[in-house]
Amino acid sequence: MNIHYPNGRKFMSPLSTSQTVKARKDPTYSNRGMTLEEDLNETNDYYLLNNIAVIHKKPTPVQIVEVNYPKRSAAVIKEAYFKQASTTDYNGVYKGKYIDFEAKETKNTTSFPLQNFHDHQIQHMRKVIQQGGICFVILRFSSTEEVFLLEAEQLLSYWERMIEGGRKSITKEEVLSTAHLISLGFRPRIDYIKIIDYLYHL
Amino acid sequence: MNIHYPNGRKFMSPLSTSQTVKARKDPTYSNRGMTLEEDLNETNDYYLLNNIAVIHKKPTPVQIVEVNYPKRSAAVIKEAYFKQASTTDYNGVYKGKYIDFEAKETKNTTSFPLQNFHDHQIQHMRKVIQQGGICFVILRFSSTEEVFLLEAEQLLSYWERMIEGGRKSITKEEVLSTAHLISLGFRPRIDYIKIIDYLYHL
Repeated sequence: MNIHYPNGRKFMSPLSTSQTVKARKDPTYSNRGMTLEEDLNETNDYYLLNNIAVIHKKPTPVQIVEVNYPKRSAAVIKEAYFKQASTTDYNGVYKGKYIDFEAKETKNTTSFPLQNFHDHQIQHMRKVIQQGGICFVILRFSSTEEVFLLEAEQLLSYWERMIEGGRKSITKEEVLSTAHLISLGFRPRIDYIKIIDYLYHL
Repeated sequence: MNIHYPNGRKFMSPLSTSQTVKARKDPTYSNRGMTLEEDLNETNDYYLLNNIAVIHKKPTPVQIVEVNYPKRSAAVIKEAYFKQASTTDYNGVYKGKYIDFEAKETKNTTSFPLQNFHDHQIQHMRKVIQQGGICFVILRFSSTEEVFLLEAEQLLSYWERMIEGGRKSITKEEVLSTAHLISLGFRPRIDYIKIIDYLYHL
């Protein structure tokens, strides 16, 4: 039921319209796939604590415009803007090897949209592969909670297909046949290192 | 000469007291050693462009408290705070190997103060070494413009000495005997990869 104010404007619940809630839904605020991010942070914490790997999420890049320095207290950033990242979000070291990945989630059930990735991230992945790093993406289908590891080389071939005028997504069948399903656990929740071990014989 | 307003308060030139300028001098704003940071960014850009290595500076970690979403324009961060980084500032890949370092500058001429490093950065370096990564610090003596690469293992031994009650700095003599002087050039300005090649036979 819609409630209308006497002025004719529709009443909107503060919960569904407040800036804070909106912020959480905006993809630029890097909160799309919050659960995937939380799960990966927990996984990386587990790896760190158990000396399995040292992998961190990079901070969100921010362009700082104005900072206040109140006396006797911490500096306050009063104006800043989100910047587009020039790399992927996660990197680190596993058995001496450089590890680099991006994590993305979709609500789609039949395909994974390539628009989830940006051109500069694709460029970065190319550079990392060229330099001998281990590079991949972690894809989650939120409806089924399936999580896959797709090697960057494979992602790049789907990307090329799109550039050449082909489809703008990876079909679910292609994901099933070219990516690696990561079994979900309690701790770590998304044990992607297991797949890396298998793929690179580390 | 000091100029006073009729209210008795001293006139301060906007140039010397504005928040912006002050911000640049505050170490928490990560601008201490601005020139060293610029030189390293230029060096990393050179490495990236010439397919020598893929090494980036991590964004400054910021705790975002309030974001405004004006209609039809970019999200504006209205309140945020600087967070302490849990890792070092630079990392990436060179010939498949994980590279990790921190860069610091001092105005001292006879020693390099260890207070330039934080405990969590030291912990991170230990973890990286344990995982087989290549980890080091780049030290600059701003008065002489000398830049050195000191391997993290060596830094850790000076850190341990401090923890055990010893001196809180590395003497210049120790830097000269245990670190590696990086010759400065035009492009790249601080060719630290050359030292890495020499040390690790890559």
